Amino acid sequence: MLGRGGAAPLDEVFGVLSQLLAAHPGPAVEEVDAGEALGRVSAEALGAPEELPAHPRSVMDGYAVRAADTFGASANLPAYLTISGEVKMGEMPTGGPAPTECYRIATGGLLPPGCDAVVMLEHTVPAGDNLVEVVKPVAPGGNIIAQGDDVQRGETLLPAGHRLRPCDLGLLAGLGLRRLKVFTPPRVGIISTGDEIIPPEKTPPPGKIRDMNMAGLLAMVQNQGAIAVNYGIVGDREADFVDQMQRALAECDMVLFSGGTSVGVGDLGERVLGKLTTPGILIHGVAVKPGKPVIVAAHGHRPVFGLPGHPVSAAASFALLVRPLLASLGGLKPPVTATAEQDSATSIGPPKADHGDQAVPHDRLRLPRPVATAILQRNLNSAAGRTDLVPVKLQSTPEGILAAIPVLGKSSALSTLVRAQGWIIIDAHLQGLDSGSQVAVYNFDTPDLF
Amino acid sequence: MLGRGGAAPLDEVFGVLSQLLAAHPGPAVEEVDAGEALGRVSAEALGAPEELPAHPRSVMDGYAVRAADTFGASANLPAYLTISGEVKMGEMPTGGPAPTECYRIATGGLLPPGCDAVVMLEHTVPAGDNLVEVVKPVAPGGNIIAQGDDVQRGETLLPAGHRLRPCDLGLLAGLGLRRLKVFTPPRVGIISTGDEIIPPEKTPPPGKIRDMNMAGLLAMVQNQGAIAVNYGIVGDREADFVDQMQRALAECDMVLFSGGTSVGVGDLGERVLGKLTTPGILIHGVAVKPGKPVIVAAHGHRPVFGLPGHPVSAAASFALLVRPLLASLGGLKPPVTATAEQDSATSIGPPKADHGDQAVPHDRLRLPRPVATAILQRNLNSAAGRTDLVPVKLQSTPEGILAAIPVLGKSSALSTLVRAQGWIIIDAHLQGLDSGSQVAVYNFDTPDLF
Repeated sequence: MLGRGGAAPLDEVFGVLSQLLAAHPGPAVEEVDAGEALGRVSAEALGAPEELPAHPRSVMDGYAVRAADTFGASANLPAYLTISGEVKMGEMPTGGPAPTECYRIATGGLLPPGCDAVVMLEHTVPAGDNLVEVVKPVAPGGNIIAQGDDVQRGETLLPAGHRLRPCDLGLLAGLGLRRLKVFTPPRVGIISTGDEIIPPEKTPPPGKIRDMNMAGLLAMVQNQGAIAVNYGIVGDREADFVDQMQRALAECDMVLFSGGTSVGVGDLGERVLGKLTTPGILIHGVAVKPGKPVIVAAHGHRPVFGLPGHPVSAAASFALLVRPLLASLGGLKPPVTATAEQDSATSIGPPKADHGDQAVPHDRLRLPRPVATAILQRNLNSAAGRTDLVPVKLQSTPEGILAAIPVLGKSSALSTLVRAQGWIIIDAHLQGLDSGSQVAVYNFDTPDLF
Repeated sequence: MLGRGGAAPLDEVFGVLSQLLAAHPGPAVEEVDAGEALGRVSAEALGAPEELPAHPRSVMDGYAVRAADTFGASANLPAYLTISGEVKMGEMPTGGPAPTECYRIATGGLLPPGCDAVVMLEHTVPAGDNLVEVVKPVAPGGNIIAQGDDVQRGETLLPAGHRLRPCDLGLLAGLGLRRLKVFTPPRVGIISTGDEIIPPEKTPPPGKIRDMNMAGLLAMVQNQGAIAVNYGIVGDREADFVDQMQRALAECDMVLFSGGTSVGVGDLGERVLGKLTTPGILIHGVAVKPGKPVIVAAHGHRPVFGLPGHPVSAAASFALLVRPLLASLGGLKPPVTATAEQDSATSIGPPKADHGDQAVPHDRLRLPRPVATAILQRNLNSAAGRTDLVPVKLQSTPEGILAAIPVLGKSSALSTLVRAQGWIIIDAHLQGLDSGSQVAVYNFDTPDLF
């Protein structure tokens, strides 16, 4: 077990999580209606069953022409074309204009036989009932979208492991793909421990406090597109904890519990996980602040996280450790355009070379992309060898520069996070950050943007 | 009407939208369970009904002490304290240790009377059954969270107009706030027009194409936390369009239709809006590319947008015009920490001074914050006076620099958006961007992050 008696560096923890992922059978697959697929993760590469558009179409209002008939046309020396017909919207034109003739066409109209371009209405002048002056030439292919210009038949549109966006759903609708194979989202069981914890709807008698971690963790899990299941508060009674943990392990793909990881309750979490899980506890203590007293365990391929009882520590541990694992268990892959370099640029996990040919999908075990760059407004100290997360408020200076103001406070004071708009990270190899440094600002609330 | 015969500059369009918002009565308010409030927008400032914590608590495992009893303690000259009791988790201690005595206490335990600090277990050495050596002094208030340290009674925790995040829900749970007043999300009706458009589940006969805009726009609206209502395809028959537009205007807070805005169908959209809406059409044509043939109209305080039929143009118009208006209609306000300078830094709307004391909430009529900064990989031309949106693919160079590669293609080719991960914007006052420029990358799919 890593971290026992100390704290495991974050990169070692990522190594352990990567191995867990490598052994994981992967998420189940289900089929959904395209109308229900927003935000879901594609479980197969989506290929085009047909080409788009199926026929060349006009992308402008104007006249369908042979481009050659307009060559050299200008305002001084226009080309005169006879309007010999009209393309009806939604109908396939059976005939087309003869040379030096044209057809009226609207945006989206199908190009008639013989034509290879559309002259924009704006580049024409009416010259009688059935005659038009073309005052600017159009090149072959001008103002049309050719057959297959948008999508070629058989082309891969989207890879597996892609979170479906509105534009993706638009294109899939255009191709008639109405049933989609997507990954079943991971089911995450959440347990709160602690004799002092009561449900939020109750009024705490002296000595008790309302459970903040359950509400926060349920929402964090939901925000990542996973299913959160509330297994309630078990107090510090080992038998209750064992019962709920057994249920959660049987019903979920991942289990989180908060509290019960520090020595005060005789390491309740450690005892329960020792009894119920195989291979059991992999890590006890991670070199991060806040969030040191974390337990990482596994039961078969189900990860189990014992998160700190302090709400800010629990949120930081979730952001750093649970969030990327959840993304992988949900089937998310990095976008196809990402290169190995891109991953390592923001990676906080072990470099790929460490794992050779094991095909460990730890490219997801990384920070999301920062959402802003800002200037730090005060010195921050940090112990070398420890990764620090600091909540920051963002404010613009009169010069339009974004300023990151650390919101300092105890890790049990959740109001510090509520007053913040993001986090900055002090890498383990640094002993702090100077006021005036440029810092990357992270937001862990949303799924990865790209 | 602005833009008639030409195209209204984007800042004028924002001016018109701002006036529309200024006259809007604002969204309705409803009450929801806190467990259902993730992502909803607070309709009132949320104040703390009580302080948190209600009593001073330990944030460490260790011994509750009088700090003065540890002053000067060191490994060579430890302070000896008698362990005269223990704080039970979840119970209010009735008595406390006498001077030079201490109580055992776990993280979260309530500080007993007489104590003002907790010595961490790590700074003690057992010295017999009921005796402990303290090897490091603790300051008064050390390792405890004092009464009200997290939240003061009556303190405003969250402003009205704030999208609720997981940490917010955690804190509200801690304060027992279980029913929350939130804004009713705007209801947005969507209509597709065009005789060539058929539903995506049908196989298009020659001349027809499947509707891509409905699927895309439904998802774009949903992604902003609003309710999307599908009013189907009306073809180019004016009577059908009038029927569905009337229904949508009666049932929704905003109506979008795509297609029918260019001259090809005799400006079907303009005719229908002219008949059904008062004050009617405010703008016809916006100086943006893609997305020029946009109609902005209003019926009472209900905005109506006629979006282009080309899917990329429709997406761009949604991103620039509909999205910020939808945020305002959903009750979202800029975060309290945002200053006027911050807004103007990324504003594409008119400066505040233009509207004097009208209290126009056009601070939301702005681009979201960029989600990345990248280096443009090719020259892009743009007409001065026109705002251009260009989809970009993002790729990292071996040096770890993020490169933005424009995905060029016709505005009817939705695959260009599917291949992209974001947009860059060429401001109206620029005539293009040079390869090698640093550019801000926007993602319009998610609600504003901060």
